[in-house]
Amino acid sequence: MVTLNTAPVEHFSKILAFGAARPEVVVTNEDVCQWIDSSDEWIRTRTGISTRHRADEDTSVLDLAVGASLQAIERAGIAAEEVDGVIVATISHPYATPSMAAQVADAVGATPAPAYDISAACAGYCYGVAQADALVRSGAARNVLVVGVEKLSDFIDNTERSISFLLGDGAGAVVVGRSETPGIAPTVWGSDGSRWDTVSMSHSMLELRNRDWVNNPVQEGEKVWPTLRQDGPTVFRWAGWEMAKVAQQALDAAGIAAEDLGAFIPHQANMRIIDQLIKTLKLPESVKVGRDIADAGNTSAASVPLAAHRLLEENPELSGKPALQIGFGAGLVYAAQVVILP
Amino acid sequence: MVTLNTAPVEHFSKILAFGAARPEVVVTNEDVCQWIDSSDEWIRTRTGISTRHRADEDTSVLDLAVGASLQAIERAGIAAEEVDGVIVATISHPYATPSMAAQVADAVGATPAPAYDISAACAGYCYGVAQADALVRSGAARNVLVVGVEKLSDFIDNTERSISFLLGDGAGAVVVGRSETPGIAPTVWGSDGSRWDTVSMSHSMLELRNRDWVNNPVQEGEKVWPTLRQDGPTVFRWAGWEMAKVAQQALDAAGIAAEDLGAFIPHQANMRIIDQLIKTLKLPESVKVGRDIADAGNTSAASVPLAAHRLLEENPELSGKPALQIGFGAGLVYAAQVVILP
Ligand SMILES: CC(C)(COP(=O)(O)OP(=O)(O)OC[C@H]1O[C@@H](n2cnc3c(N)ncnc32)[C@H](O)[C@@H]1OP(=O)(O)O)[C@@H](O)C(=O)NCCC(=O)NCCS
Ligand SMILES: CC(C)(COP(=O)(O)OP(=O)(O)OC[C@H]1O[C@@H](n2cnc3c(N)ncnc32)[C@H](O)[C@@H]1OP(=O)(O)O)[C@@H](O)C(=O)NCCC(=O)NCCS
Repeated sequence: MVTLNTAPVEHFSKILAFGAARPEVVVTNEDVCQWIDSSDEWIRTRTGISTRHRADEDTSVLDLAVGASLQAIERAGIAAEEVDGVIVATISHPYATPSMAAQVADAVGATPAPAYDISAACAGYCYGVAQADALVRSGAARNVLVVGVEKLSDFIDNTERSISFLLGDGAGAVVVGRSETPGIAPTVWGSDGSRWDTVSMSHSMLELRNRDWVNNPVQEGEKVWPTLRQDGPTVFRWAGWEMAKVAQQALDAAGIAAEDLGAFIPHQANMRIIDQLIKTLKLPESVKVGRDIADAGNTSAASVPLAAHRLLEENPELSGKPALQIGFGAGLVYAAQVVILP
Repeated sequence: MVTLNTAPVEHFSKILAFGAARPEVVVTNEDVCQWIDSSDEWIRTRTGISTRHRADEDTSVLDLAVGASLQAIERAGIAAEEVDGVIVATISHPYATPSMAAQVADAVGATPAPAYDISAACAGYCYGVAQADALVRSGAARNVLVVGVEKLSDFIDNTERSISFLLGDGAGAVVVGRSETPGIAPTVWGSDGSRWDTVSMSHSMLELRNRDWVNNPVQEGEKVWPTLRQDGPTVFRWAGWEMAKVAQQALDAAGIAAEDLGAFIPHQANMRIIDQLIKTLKLPESVKVGRDIADAGNTSAASVPLAAHRLLEENPELSGKPALQIGFGAGLVYAAQVVILP
């Protein structure tokens, strides 16, 4: 029998640094109310959102990803060539292939790092951290760049009232590298595909392929392009209830209690979901909470790293403290893990 | 300072079983020659392809993925509930979100397993095996279902001559589980995003979003839907030359020589590329080679597991022998690893 070598599994992993890219166009609730029947008051009280940032026409989803990545690499204090894994979590890359990750790797100077995109919606970044952790601890990589990036404005219909008004664009990135002590606790993650339709696209892209455009021309006002939809109340109940359990499991898996946390950085879906999670988890006042949603809206895969980036800028004393991060969204999918903040 | 728990890293991993789904429509070279200026003779001598299988209208890419997955799980001898990770490698899922993986997990009975799609084109399956190996060895998962699936017929233009005639539909799947001895050697993988355009889509999906359909109606013969394109000779040179080096590095990483191999299972891109790799690697005649391309065409992410599945059915004595598998394609991206065949 032939015996194979296998990579050593002797390392711990940690987040070395965060990077962020926030696009400049500010969309206010007043702007939103020109497109849908709503009010600034309703949006603020029901979601906690005052503004969302969106990228202009000249800023692509790739530009956002590269911006956040360059900052994360620089702050990690490593050379781009030392990055040997690039994971891009996104749902807004407008090509079936190739991946955005190969472009990001090249743009930041990390070629020939292995590079792939992942699709796990608003849990994408936390899914990516779980993979980076496994890659680093199993010896398959040393420094993995994980990017959560969305230009959701490309995939929404502003006149649609179930989800579009919540969403913003942006990118957050981390470098996960080796550590002497555990810096990423076990991820508690999962899916529930029986609720695949809860947050989804209006129609399949194949409808565009199969259409007889000449004999069935597009009518004024017809929505050709698939855009996001959701059953908001269902997501709301699932997030507030089930995600509190997942977050508690992640604390248990890390072997720490809510009081030990420096920060709580949940997916920025709705301020009321954040408040409900805090209540159910009985987080003490001392725990700083990511509340980026107020200005940034829900940026899907970018929301957790963007919120973490901001929390660290505003509270540098959090460095070295444990943070509970949790992402959840379309799939349905979710992932939570305790990390030591860089 | 708080100390976190971390998952144990004491396991080896191996492929427990393969599964496959081959759609029934057979597209011959004669069929192809109705669409493009070519000949059966040219296609056979230049590519080694006689037929490719494609799915009919009623068979979705999800159906293919579920078919291969159910077989892999059954052959692995585990219950579907024991699957605690689902990775779907594909470029032909027609929704921006949610992932196909969440649907697959649910359809096979693996909910609430974490589930995500990856985009790494024809290297997708080998990328998935690298991740599954890291997840299992690092203790993050016990049994990971990795699926390579494509319904490429949804993303090609049959009248296009650079790539479409090569491509087929299908799905291959494996379950990666724990092992007492190393069953998956270190993956040699990478990307070269500077050659992102070498295999790519004809245009961005955003062109469909941004079009003024009413004032700029679709003309007869106009190709609205983005389809695959390639610079074939560039891929051919890159694959034949660079991929031989990557394959050799994977052998070196496994600590074995070409003579130790039971099988060589390269991406099924072109029979001449396969022959060139064999020559450069100096594989002895005793090594069985996956040559599924002759009937199945190039099925992108599905090609390596489909070829492996068939090789094992035709040569059951390969069970327990090491196989070198390598995937490469759009990105450009590549991944190679030696695995012990189940
Ligand atoms: C979307 C969401 C804000 C809707 O809030 P809600 O309180 O659940 O609202 P409901 O859909 O139950 O509707 C309650 C009322 O508000 C109205 N309403 C719904 N959307 C509205 C909007 N955008 N503006 C104004 N009114 C709105 C409804 O018409 C309804 O009116 P009625 O009581 O007169 O019939 C909320 O469900 C949510 O945030 N869910 C989480 C989803 C999420 O973030 N998903 C992203 C993926 S993670
Ligand atoms: C696509 C591929 C078969 C083309 O074969 P090739 O030998 O490189 O062909 P070239 O493009 O250099 O063209 C050589 C001749 O064949 C002709 N030709 C190209 N495609 C043809 C086709 N489908 N049928 C008939 N003739 C064809 C060209 O017009 C050219 O004719 P000329 O000599 O009269 O000018 C080959 O490059 C290939 O398989 N590359 C690998 C790519 C791959 O599998 N990619 C998928 C992603 S991994």
